[in-house]
Amino acid sequence: MVRYNADEVIAVKKISASLINRVIQPRPQESHKGTFGRVLVIGGNAQFGGAAIMAASAAVYCGAGLVSVATAPVNRSALHARLPEAMIIPYDDPQLMALIRTVDVVAIGPGLGTDELAASILSHTLKTVKDSQALIIDGSAITLIAEHQLTVSHARTVWTPHQMEWQRLSGIAVRDQTPLANQTAATKLPGTVIVKSHRTELFTPTASYENPVGTPAMATGGMGDTLVGMLAGFIAQFGLSDDVVSAAVYAHSAIAEELAKTNYVVLPSMLIQQLPNYMQRAAAAQV
Amino acid sequence: MVRYNADEVIAVKKISASLINRVIQPRPQESHKGTFGRVLVIGGNAQFGGAAIMAASAAVYCGAGLVSVATAPVNRSALHARLPEAMIIPYDDPQLMALIRTVDVVAIGPGLGTDELAASILSHTLKTVKDSQALIIDGSAITLIAEHQLTVSHARTVWTPHQMEWQRLSGIAVRDQTPLANQTAATKLPGTVIVKSHRTELFTPTASYENPVGTPAMATGGMGDTLVGMLAGFIAQFGLSDDVVSAAVYAHSAIAEELAKTNYVVLPSMLIQQLPNYMQRAAAAQV
Amino acid sequence: MVRYNADEVIAVKKISASLINRVIQPRPQESHKGTFGRVLVIGGNAQFGGAAIMAASAAVYCGAGLVSVATAPVNRSALHARLPEAMIIPYDDPQLMALIRTVDVVAIGPGLGTDELAASILSHTLKTVKDSQALIIDGSAITLIAEHQLTVSHARTVWTPHQMEWQRLSGIAVRDQTPLANQTAATKLPGTVIVKSHRTELFTPTASYENPVGTPAMATGGMGDTLVGMLAGFIAQFGLSDDVVSAAVYAHSAIAEELAKTNYVVLPSMLIQQLPNYMQRAAAAQV
Amino acid sequence: MVRYNADEVIAVKKISASLINRVIQPRPQESHKGTFGRVLVIGGNAQFGGAAIMAASAAVYCGAGLVSVATAPVNRSALHARLPEAMIIPYDDPQLMALIRTVDVVAIGPGLGTDELAASILSHTLKTVKDSQALIIDGSAITLIAEHQLTVSHARTVWTPHQMEWQRLSGIAVRDQTPLANQTAATKLPGTVIVKSHRTELFTPTASYENPVGTPAMATGGMGDTLVGMLAGFIAQFGLSDDVVSAAVYAHSAIAEELAKTNYVVLPSMLIQQLPNYMQRAAAAQV
Repeated sequence: MVRYNADEVIAVKKISASLINRVIQPRPQESHKGTFGRVLVIGGNAQFGGAAIMAASAAVYCGAGLVSVATAPVNRSALHARLPEAMIIPYDDPQLMALIRTVDVVAIGPGLGTDELAASILSHTLKTVKDSQALIIDGSAITLIAEHQLTVSHARTVWTPHQMEWQRLSGIAVRDQTPLANQTAATKLPGTVIVKSHRTELFTPTASYENPVGTPAMATGGMGDTLVGMLAGFIAQFGLSDDVVSAAVYAHSAIAEELAKTNYVVLPSMLIQQLPNYMQRAAAAQV
Repeated sequence: MVRYNADEVIAVKKISASLINRVIQPRPQESHKGTFGRVLVIGGNAQFGGAAIMAASAAVYCGAGLVSVATAPVNRSALHARLPEAMIIPYDDPQLMALIRTVDVVAIGPGLGTDELAASILSHTLKTVKDSQALIIDGSAITLIAEHQLTVSHARTVWTPHQMEWQRLSGIAVRDQTPLANQTAATKLPGTVIVKSHRTELFTPTASYENPVGTPAMATGGMGDTLVGMLAGFIAQFGLSDDVVSAAVYAHSAIAEELAKTNYVVLPSMLIQQLPNYMQRAAAAQV
Repeated sequence: MVRYNADEVIAVKKISASLINRVIQPRPQESHKGTFGRVLVIGGNAQFGGAAIMAASAAVYCGAGLVSVATAPVNRSALHARLPEAMIIPYDDPQLMALIRTVDVVAIGPGLGTDELAASILSHTLKTVKDSQALIIDGSAITLIAEHQLTVSHARTVWTPHQMEWQRLSGIAVRDQTPLANQTAATKLPGTVIVKSHRTELFTPTASYENPVGTPAMATGGMGDTLVGMLAGFIAQFGLSDDVVSAAVYAHSAIAEELAKTNYVVLPSMLIQQLPNYMQRAAAAQV
Repeated sequence: MVRYNADEVIAVKKISASLINRVIQPRPQESHKGTFGRVLVIGGNAQFGGAAIMAASAAVYCGAGLVSVATAPVNRSALHARLPEAMIIPYDDPQLMALIRTVDVVAIGPGLGTDELAASILSHTLKTVKDSQALIIDGSAITLIAEHQLTVSHARTVWTPHQMEWQRLSGIAVRDQTPLANQTAATKLPGTVIVKSHRTELFTPTASYENPVGTPAMATGGMGDTLVGMLAGFIAQFGLSDDVVSAAVYAHSAIAEELAKTNYVVLPSMLIQQLPNYMQRAAAAQV
């Protein structure tokens, strides 16, 4: 893949390690689970149920106060067998729209699929999300938006395409996805765009960032879903900002780097398990 | 939130660490599982199944002799995948009332929901519980009692509202929940009231207590369900008394404090896993 | 409970620690999974599914070559979520009787229940088991045999009643279950009787044994099911003899004693997890 | 079992430990999950669902980029409860053939069973697999091919019979399975034949190998399924060659040998868990 040197073309900041310590702060003493935010993950059809499970697990293990999952009902037993901490609602339940209104962060897309039901859930979700809520659009939801040419105007949006999804959404072929081209396309979308690759890039309305950490041990199914859950959990706790989104991206890779010292492949379930300890060290300025 | 200084208004005792060692004693050699009590958790509808799983797990892991769960049948696989030690009965099974009569402790409410079925199960349970049995009323069950203005006259009751549930039950708005106001309202209810917050308070017919330990790392979904299971397990093993209820509340927070040294968020499943070891140390006077 | 001094009345041998090393031998190099025997656990109705899961898990983790479970179909997901190593067949499948004929050890009873279906499965199993196969009769199956006055004439039988089940089977009230009375009743049954209590007794056609180890930390639901699985796994690997049955009983308690040093309650799943390591140490004469 | 001395009859090379380090290389920095290959496991009927779960788990834990499982729908919850990283499709879904065309490695047979549905799935799979794809034929699929005398002409095939399956496929009785006889029969089949025993043999079109490592602790149900998953994962990452197949066979036994130092029986789930660490050490030339 031909790539321009990012630094020559546009101002791309490298996310710094110290950002982690700034974003992940010791928790306030006077707090309750509501203090740390409500997350709703919408995803997981009958084929890709694991994606929603991994996203929800990451949100819980990084500290979101309350996490619900709207998913295909067949995923119920596996979700609760792994994560009794989460609540579940069938994603075709009419109550879903009411539930959306009660949360701080909606993450839609992990394993959602691209059939009519998925398109309908996505469309209703886009109409229901309020300005004050954060919205993460991932995976199948990105493909659906590209295919159905849906308009998203929600300012507090975070997009998490991998390179093929970004091609579908931006129209830029993978080999042409230079930082400049990506940045130009990203500015046409509301919110922040995270283009995932072996060196993930972030494009916010005001700046561009590159993630300096990461390891090929992360190149395995489910890692993107795990990032979605971390983004949701970070935003639920720390608010939506360039710093917070960058910190989630950085932490995701930094934990994987640590685990890769002793593991040839870093699986999502291993990374998720490590989140509480990594974040404690971050809050104590020990990473 | 405006709060009066508790010590000026009413005599509030701080639960002392040494209580743990007094309550958690080495087990008698001549014993069998019946010696350590039978617990029944009633809860977990289709949306909140994890709550019943966590409560039952806490009861098993803190040492209750036999634990059954009455829950929505859809929760069966996840319950047994996590906890084969528990028995299960659908919560709408006519045999439930017979089962209630065979146990030492009934804990109703975790994830029960507030629909008609839940109200009916609660109402039948309240009628079925005998004077000799301990009854823990939590979560949705508290909301149902408040909404339906059900009368509870069972003396051996432990109530475990969080602040919003306490508002519904007592009529005291969260911001007005001072120790004195809470105590006054609690005396109108039979048994012991545990008002959960970042510094949980206990009101028994004869005294008021404050829990001096705890950590914001506990502020996550399912922690209340875990406390319910611990209360059930403690009462099943050690009997119902101010000391035993206080010890369960204290241990719940003390374990979380230990885990919070290396974890930014302490999840219910982590706390539950730690119970057998913490209690062994308590019995050996090492905590 | 009034108890005579066993040594004054009948010759009761204490199982010795060295037996473990004699029974658990290093595995032969030229071997395959068939060498280590085939086990079939029949049990686990809709209420007590965990019992069959724990029994099967113990059989797998102590080294049985191949383990199948005949159980209520609702237990499938939880069984495989915990134990993919086991195979499953619905216990009302007509193929069950053919499956019985292919195994070395049949263990019937854990969580089987006592309804008509359970009675029918038990009755068919008793008719199907061949002389060369070992048969373990536990829990509900013992109750059914007592209630329905079924005749068992299979010589290679191991009975595992707890004290209440033994009362039903032998007609001896729990308080009258002295070693002499138990021995006398046991001789009327074919095979070996293990009367489980805080000091478990074994009665074989030729001798009586007492288990000198154990801990009240074992007094929790599922410990009996775990013993059934260990008995099945030991017999599958080492054959049926006084020594092998005694070794399984001893090892079950010895592992629990080890775990009880750091755990107030020893749960079946903890004990099962420890089996491969304990047995390795036993084979290396390190326990 | 009478066995000739392999070295006298045909040239049988022992797989060398250093092969592991040659095959398992540090991952390229510029990579994504597609780089590490797509695996499809087809297997797991209602009785043998664990086999497909173990094979898929091994593929994921040794580093395959994306793993899908085509299995009986009843296995869904257990699969995802253990392995959210995998995707699932019912094995009788008409979309299966389209899915086959998208993967790099198809592994068919673990727990597939031998009924008409299984035969039909196998037959359609054999017709659908393209020359460029690797095909692993295991367990029930081997039995079906032998029973139905199906013709397999796919050059990139790896066969993994145990001795009884090899008897069915080759017509050579187990006691007559000498290296020479095995080699002669293997040359009549396309691809590589792995005859599993306590000293597994590999026959490729150009050479014969013996696996010098292994332990009787591996003689337990599911170990063969685990090997299938490792073969799939190795081929997905490193390509199909004598070296890669040999390395998977060697690593499978070498990990078991390590675990057998502290475990009397090495269960598939234990071996699978160890894969990421073993492979990291292999890539760093530390095994």
